[in-house]
Amino acid sequence: MNIGKFIVVEGLEGAGKTTAIRNVIETLKAYGIAEIETTREPGGTPLAEQMRALVKEGHPDEPLTDMAELLLLYAARIQLVDNVIKPALNRGAFVVGDRHDMSSQAYQGGGRGFDKALMENLRDTVLGNFRPDFTLYMDLDPAIGLSRAKARGELDRIEKMQLDFFHRTRARYLEMANADDSIVIIDASQTIEKVSEDIKAALENWLNHAG
Amino acid sequence: MNIGKFIVVEGLEGAGKTTAIRNVIETLKAYGIAEIETTREPGGTPLAEQMRALVKEGHPDEPLTDMAELLLLYAARIQLVDNVIKPALNRGAFVVGDRHDMSSQAYQGGGRGFDKALMENLRDTVLGNFRPDFTLYMDLDPAIGLSRAKARGELDRIEKMQLDFFHRTRARYLEMANADDSIVIIDASQTIEKVSEDIKAALENWLNHAG
Repeated sequence: MNIGKFIVVEGLEGAGKTTAIRNVIETLKAYGIAEIETTREPGGTPLAEQMRALVKEGHPDEPLTDMAELLLLYAARIQLVDNVIKPALNRGAFVVGDRHDMSSQAYQGGGRGFDKALMENLRDTVLGNFRPDFTLYMDLDPAIGLSRAKARGELDRIEKMQLDFFHRTRARYLEMANADDSIVIIDASQTIEKVSEDIKAALENWLNHAG
Repeated sequence: MNIGKFIVVEGLEGAGKTTAIRNVIETLKAYGIAEIETTREPGGTPLAEQMRALVKEGHPDEPLTDMAELLLLYAARIQLVDNVIKPALNRGAFVVGDRHDMSSQAYQGGGRGFDKALMENLRDTVLGNFRPDFTLYMDLDPAIGLSRAKARGELDRIEKMQLDFFHRTRARYLEMANADDSIVIIDASQTIEKVSEDIKAALENWLNHAG
């Protein structure tokens, strides 16, 4: 009895996900949605946040392998899906996610170069057929996004990657968005006002046709 | 240039793995092996030990899902294989492991009931074709093993499982051991002296034919 909806905001560092999520929540409230829950990935549960810390911080004496990173991200994801997202959807709440599986497909698949078949196989093994109902992908040139993220303060282990990594990540994001009708691309290089307008218009259009 | 060998000791809680590992090391030393490294799973590296803690302790406010447990075990395993075991083998050391992949196949596959194809697929995805050279499986009735483990002190999250779980785990252990010539079954219900004799005989037999 899944009567709620799972809406995800995706994009590179500095693409404006935080503001976008605020826009989404305002739009949902104006639309009369009573219960709205927000999540972030990786993390969002006590155990998933511990896994997030391993991914984000690594360890001074040991490199985190790409494969271990990938497995930790999926371990954190299934904790969040099973213990937070599905229960919320089942009681009729709307869940607004700051990142979900598309991030792994883009960063680990596109960026790190894990084979696409491996990535899709792992997703299906861990998540079954659970998918977001609607996704907003905030598209931005990585050079702009990273300079914004840098201006905010210290960079974590992943944000320190080379620009090439983020170009490959963006390319995979765009490839997925173009192949899936439930994903809308928002041009995040526009003014903050125009970005907000686009988000509201896209979300309202979906709400008017999804229900 | 993998010139070392990876020897694993497997078995249920209380089956005498610690003593068996001591016997293995003594036998290897008597055989003239210069460098012997020991590992334990899950764990054995700084990051893998943090993953082990999540598996063993869980969290008071959140259940660890079976799938997240499985992914954490493999994340810990690839950290150990890439950062400790393979480098040791490459410099010619013998590595003696307290558990390895067979534990996941038995506990998560047999015990928790994960599909065998899923388990083998995950193993191949994470480990490629990396396998132990020789395995000693310490076989014991779970009822005896658990009473020994209980006598040693507090039980962890996994040791608190029902007896049925361990019977399924043992059945998978035996099934795998019977299908693979590189795995020798040791009857761990015998006296400690007879068990030690059997371990030394099996290991010496393998050393004399593997080199």
